[in-house]
Amino acid sequence: MASDALVPETRVLAIASHVVHGYVGNKMATCVMQAMGCDVSAINTVHYSNHTAYKQVKGTKTTAAELEQLYEGLRQSNLTNFDVLLTGYVPSADAVRAVGKIGRDIKFNAGTKPGSFFWAVLDPVMGDNGKLYIPEDEVPEYKRLLREADLILPNQFEAETLSEIPIHDLASLARAIHVLHSTYRVPHVIITSLRLTRDNQIPSSRPVTQPHTPSAEAADPLSSPPPPPPHSPAHEHDQVETLTIIGSTATSDFKPRLFRIDTPALPLFFSGTGDMFAALTVPRLIEAVSTSPSEQNLRNTPSWRSPDDVAAEDLPLAAACQKVLASMQAVLGKTAESCRAKMDAFDDAAARAGGGESETKRHLALMNASEVVVPRHVRDLLEPPHLERFRPRAVTVAI
Amino acid sequence: MASDALVPETRVLAIASHVVHGYVGNKMATCVMQAMGCDVSAINTVHYSNHTAYKQVKGTKTTAAELEQLYEGLRQSNLTNFDVLLTGYVPSADAVRAVGKIGRDIKFNAGTKPGSFFWAVLDPVMGDNGKLYIPEDEVPEYKRLLREADLILPNQFEAETLSEIPIHDLASLARAIHVLHSTYRVPHVIITSLRLTRDNQIPSSRPVTQPHTPSAEAADPLSSPPPPPPHSPAHEHDQVETLTIIGSTATSDFKPRLFRIDTPALPLFFSGTGDMFAALTVPRLIEAVSTSPSEQNLRNTPSWRSPDDVAAEDLPLAAACQKVLASMQAVLGKTAESCRAKMDAFDDAAARAGGGESETKRHLALMNASEVVVPRHVRDLLEPPHLERFRPRAVTVAI
Repeated sequence: MASDALVPETRVLAIASHVVHGYVGNKMATCVMQAMGCDVSAINTVHYSNHTAYKQVKGTKTTAAELEQLYEGLRQSNLTNFDVLLTGYVPSADAVRAVGKIGRDIKFNAGTKPGSFFWAVLDPVMGDNGKLYIPEDEVPEYKRLLREADLILPNQFEAETLSEIPIHDLASLARAIHVLHSTYRVPHVIITSLRLTRDNQIPSSRPVTQPHTPSAEAADPLSSPPPPPPHSPAHEHDQVETLTIIGSTATSDFKPRLFRIDTPALPLFFSGTGDMFAALTVPRLIEAVSTSPSEQNLRNTPSWRSPDDVAAEDLPLAAACQKVLASMQAVLGKTAESCRAKMDAFDDAAARAGGGESETKRHLALMNASEVVVPRHVRDLLEPPHLERFRPRAVTVAI
Repeated sequence: MASDALVPETRVLAIASHVVHGYVGNKMATCVMQAMGCDVSAINTVHYSNHTAYKQVKGTKTTAAELEQLYEGLRQSNLTNFDVLLTGYVPSADAVRAVGKIGRDIKFNAGTKPGSFFWAVLDPVMGDNGKLYIPEDEVPEYKRLLREADLILPNQFEAETLSEIPIHDLASLARAIHVLHSTYRVPHVIITSLRLTRDNQIPSSRPVTQPHTPSAEAADPLSSPPPPPPHSPAHEHDQVETLTIIGSTATSDFKPRLFRIDTPALPLFFSGTGDMFAALTVPRLIEAVSTSPSEQNLRNTPSWRSPDDVAAEDLPLAAACQKVLASMQAVLGKTAESCRAKMDAFDDAAARAGGGESETKRHLALMNASEVVVPRHVRDLLEPPHLERFRPRAVTVAI
């Protein structure tokens, strides 16, 4: 098909949550991947009015039977030859099992063509800040998914839970990633939003001090009380600091090849940034793998895993993350700016009205103002600005 | 918000069907309007695996109560200040009533600011080729919606049903549109995909000779047998002819101001083109109204209705349709080309295998190959090529 799109024709199945208003889950992932030129088929695991950080939401969940029925509809019409599967929040253990069956079916059918199917798992085990967001019985189901995945994007707490290694510095982080590579046989791992101190210590994920961009649909407001709000207005004026992402593509003996990219943290908390990161990473990785100078054709290599002689900072995964972070920094920076202006106007209006706006009304306005309205920022996604500021560096630690 | 988008910040609520695979209903409308820079909130009226022209589909419908619940979720968080409402297929009379309540609530809240809310209704009454696709009891509910609408996009059969005037030439078409303007108080009407003869006769919509781009989700395969397939493979090789769209913006006394644009018909039937037309028209109309040379500020005029001294061919609606048709011709032309190549490959493979592919398998392959994969064609949406070929002309007939 004639196209000026970034990536070759790419069919993605995205299984995650739908929100009517705002940009998290599949709403974010679909919009971002379509902007990058992907043909995205979306199976929605919940249908909510908005994301849960608003602290109030209405809607319904999709049952495991309904998920399986939709996939069966695709299967009977020969529509399941997906190149990529992206899975995010799934609302029950049964539904995670259904997603596993779907993924394994696609993978099985692609089995004869190495590299023709790639499975990215966002937010495995679904927890943050020292707290599981999902029922305990979902954890083993999520762990089973991981063993099929080509790329996982856990946060610090999830990486600790999966590896059973507490992360407190780069060496323990490297050990945890090593376990993820070797135990779960996951070739690619990215841990986003780490807050490293100057001497490369990593504060525990347990006490809630700073949010680590939890996926906003992680909590289940329809059947249990929401988690502690990650969005208290106090965070609006946090001072700028640094966020680090650490990525790794395993070598053939499942050793980590670690790179890091540091970005200035923005003085605002956004929902859906994990979903945005994952949705940008998939097409950027396809782009990097397709244009990789390696003699091997990575697109036909299982899991697009680079040969052992490729250094960490030269990995396609590192090149992808560099572009992803440059795009996100630009989009989130503009969103922070417009959010600040909207909240100043809100506060001015409230002051003129005698200061009578409730804390709840202000919180709702802040949530709305901090939505990342992707369709207004497509150019920054396609042409990541200031790429040189996000150069990946190899991390060398003894593990 | 800093943006290079086509339209000013525009919040759209789109209420229509979702398909996992392919591009019809809300899947088409959301993707198109996001590509044009709109912030689209999508309430999905069905969740189907694919569109119904595949002749097999799985999934579920959204109940009226679920639709109302999602809207109530938006309302309680102050998220209902939409600029535009686009409504399409709704699966039951109860659900149409729910959509009516939603639309009237948004309209009521926007009441103090003329022109700040615009309601477009796609496929009113849902029928084609002389046949209703919906239960009889939905028709009065759809008619009630129309009285609220600013723009409707009926097909020939729907225009006949609503106006109770059989359309057989330009004069009867003009009379039908006059009735739509005056009886339903709809300021803007567009009738797409008319097949006019050389002497401007319009064949009856009753006998099925050529499909008039019915909305692919119109049929209800989950509770009734699907309508006669509009996509039989025989249509692949129909010879090129002309399709005409007729549009009108009413004068202050509800007289039609008619314009026409003729386009070469493509030798292939596509699903979702009505949805694509509507989704492109909304942002293009906003663009045309915002840049209109009229002394009156149309954006602050109820229904963005031009003053009486604006000629038919100079209407913002005509300017919008010109760009919409130029974009669609480009995208559908490329899709037809790629479809032909894919079907040739399919037929070659079948011939090599001894000609053993079933008619069903070929039909499924054809449906898939004729999907309009919007994310691969965003440039043609943003920069409509060969605009001069789609110049609107005034239609002057005595009515």
